[in-house]
Amino acid sequence: MKNILIIGAGRSATALINYVLKQSESFGWFVTVADANPELAISKVGSHPQGRATWLDVTKVNDRRELIERADVVVSLLPAHLHIEVAYDCIRLKKHLITASYVSKEMYRLGDEARNRELIFMGEMGLDPGIDHMSAKQKIDEIIAKGGTLKAFRSYTGGLIAPESDDNPWHYKFTWNPRNVVLAGQGTAQYLEKGKYKYIPYNRLFEQYRTINVEGLGDFEVYANRDSLLYREVYGLGDLPSILRGTIRNAGFCDAWNALIKIGLTDGSYPILESKDLTYHSLMEAYLGPREGTGSVRERIADFLGETPFSPVMRKLDWLGLFRNKRIGIERATPALILENLLLEKWKLKPEDKDMIIMRHEFEYEMDGENREVTSTLVLEGNDSVDTAMSKLVGVPMGIFVKLVMQGKIKETGVNIPVMKQVYDPVLEELKEHGVVFKEVERVMPADA
Amino acid sequence: MKNILIIGAGRSATALINYVLKQSESFGWFVTVADANPELAISKVGSHPQGRATWLDVTKVNDRRELIERADVVVSLLPAHLHIEVAYDCIRLKKHLITASYVSKEMYRLGDEARNRELIFMGEMGLDPGIDHMSAKQKIDEIIAKGGTLKAFRSYTGGLIAPESDDNPWHYKFTWNPRNVVLAGQGTAQYLEKGKYKYIPYNRLFEQYRTINVEGLGDFEVYANRDSLLYREVYGLGDLPSILRGTIRNAGFCDAWNALIKIGLTDGSYPILESKDLTYHSLMEAYLGPREGTGSVRERIADFLGETPFSPVMRKLDWLGLFRNKRIGIERATPALILENLLLEKWKLKPEDKDMIIMRHEFEYEMDGENREVTSTLVLEGNDSVDTAMSKLVGVPMGIFVKLVMQGKIKETGVNIPVMKQVYDPVLEELKEHGVVFKEVERVMPADA
Repeated sequence: MKNILIIGAGRSATALINYVLKQSESFGWFVTVADANPELAISKVGSHPQGRATWLDVTKVNDRRELIERADVVVSLLPAHLHIEVAYDCIRLKKHLITASYVSKEMYRLGDEARNRELIFMGEMGLDPGIDHMSAKQKIDEIIAKGGTLKAFRSYTGGLIAPESDDNPWHYKFTWNPRNVVLAGQGTAQYLEKGKYKYIPYNRLFEQYRTINVEGLGDFEVYANRDSLLYREVYGLGDLPSILRGTIRNAGFCDAWNALIKIGLTDGSYPILESKDLTYHSLMEAYLGPREGTGSVRERIADFLGETPFSPVMRKLDWLGLFRNKRIGIERATPALILENLLLEKWKLKPEDKDMIIMRHEFEYEMDGENREVTSTLVLEGNDSVDTAMSKLVGVPMGIFVKLVMQGKIKETGVNIPVMKQVYDPVLEELKEHGVVFKEVERVMPADA
Repeated sequence: MKNILIIGAGRSATALINYVLKQSESFGWFVTVADANPELAISKVGSHPQGRATWLDVTKVNDRRELIERADVVVSLLPAHLHIEVAYDCIRLKKHLITASYVSKEMYRLGDEARNRELIFMGEMGLDPGIDHMSAKQKIDEIIAKGGTLKAFRSYTGGLIAPESDDNPWHYKFTWNPRNVVLAGQGTAQYLEKGKYKYIPYNRLFEQYRTINVEGLGDFEVYANRDSLLYREVYGLGDLPSILRGTIRNAGFCDAWNALIKIGLTDGSYPILESKDLTYHSLMEAYLGPREGTGSVRERIADFLGETPFSPVMRKLDWLGLFRNKRIGIERATPALILENLLLEKWKLKPEDKDMIIMRHEFEYEMDGENREVTSTLVLEGNDSVDTAMSKLVGVPMGIFVKLVMQGKIKETGVNIPVMKQVYDPVLEELKEHGVVFKEVERVMPADA
């Protein structure tokens, strides 16, 4: 095997391309990077002698197949809904396929065909999902191997801003998909606590956050993800009584975000007909009902939220400019789109800003009559607004896995996610060289816990 | 013109079919009723000598066109998204088309073609939309014609249960689409009050209801519809400073429905993974967070809602059986689907139950230096659970309009809704014979209003 094809040269591609090009110097591989924007692909490949940039409109079936035909391993960084077309080609042309996206039902249905053709289709091979699976499953398997009985598993991840680049009262900037941040949590979060199902609807999600402490960094807030229950099956923990997955934000974020929800600014379902000509101030005024008394719009919003005029929440709303007479200027936008556009400007990384990933796992288990708890924590900062920890931790695991496949070290064929020892051990081992080091703290819990 | 084709023989078809068959006796028309369920069509046509029932799978293009080809006027009672295919056929085959559904953008785009072929494409020709347009626009045009300047227009409609059939604490039963009732109001309601935009997000919609009094029936609650602003253009009232459309419910409904929203039971976006094996009681327990104290699930829900244990809201929740240990029994259902299935049973009309339509318009206008208000109110009861006021008021306006078209009395071609005098005058006049009589009260408002 000599040829690697990477489809997509966007934000998450840089670290992957750099890793694979570097490895190709030792192994003599040849790397093709294809993108609808050929200049983007050229800029990522540079003048590397073993790299080639090419133009690809992925909807052009013949062009796509021609490129895939010439590869041994294909990495798809396309938007998630486009992977499946590449997957069909890979089945047909007998090529291995790697993505960082959640594995869809359609993709899982290709499992038998992939296995029959001895193909490796690996999904969820990035950060979250990806490193979360590998690091959690490694520890879970370790606890079970030494005779422990797992009682609880909780896992939280946050894409945050590094303390030295944190210069706004929200203590947050966008380091990944802004739209997902604005719409986060809509639906009903589901998890298990001591054998009981727990559901949190969106209207309470950012009220019912929990607090975690990260050594050297202080307290953070965690709100529940929608999908915790799914992970019991995925990790083979069908009867685990407590499982929770969550998202980490800096202290103070959840109360302020909850204020935006209560006002109505995260609704993405229906456009505001006159949004173009409104100002942010008139938008806020329009949300005030008859019961919010008199006073300025800002005072009435504070009153409605149950906040004092200069509370931390109100200061965060002020900083966003929600009470300013500036025109919104977007036609027929949903409240969520209006908010996203405002935040894109306010929460934009400056060129030198560093992002920070925090991943925290909590495992509770019983062994030798004792209740024990292990917390395992990863903190990693990026270098600047381009070379982010986020893009590195999405790209490098895929790169390492590409290498393992090219070297013939992966035997598990079919459609998988990285929860098997054969995969997580070597990938996590090499990730240590890239700063992915989890710090573990283990303690015996009091008997009544 | 001799031939009328009615596509769809469901709930809303009965009154229309009866009306048109009756008229056909005087006018010598021939009426074809087509449905995917031929027995349903047969049952509606009976043995009427001028009626014919036929089977039609509307996705079978040739069958559909063959039927349309033989008609002069086509009435489509299909689900809203299917009208457009019928409309294309009607353009091609030069047939008039009538529906009771909201006119879609695609349908409006056929306006020029319909006009060029001298075709009448009339949409929104039922109750709401339909009678609301006609009765409101008639009054608005009358006020303007006599020299008044309109200052405010508010219009509310409710499909309710008649007082003599009202035997549950919610004072509500389903008389139309249950799914729409469960999901009602999601998004952001928009209206205008004294020149200012007002937006109400879903999380406050059922708190911010207003109260209206209907003579002889007492107080009712009104929550805002999502789309009030659209009606300014539709009625040619571009600079009207106050406009609001709303939905009428019996007193006490909104607070109790708001409790269901707060608990999380109206979320239709994401399935509860383990819904099949839960009981309603365990579902309610799962919604309780850590802050709801101790006590029974019912007590903690009351506490969370800020209700006393036997408040009207808690009694309504009790009556639904939300605290019973009965299995939900639906696999992977969203909370909204779980609620809909529960309500389908609890809010089902008994055979002899009568429904009741209330429509209320409020017009404020200035004339001769005086501020005046007219309220115009329609109350109409059905006969039983089949012959409902709802189905009558959806079907009969379409029937009357079919007659007017067949008689050549309608000159307005193109895609329209019934807001022109030529249409609303004769339709409303004949509707009086069917009990559609609005009661008007006019008063001079105090100078400071």
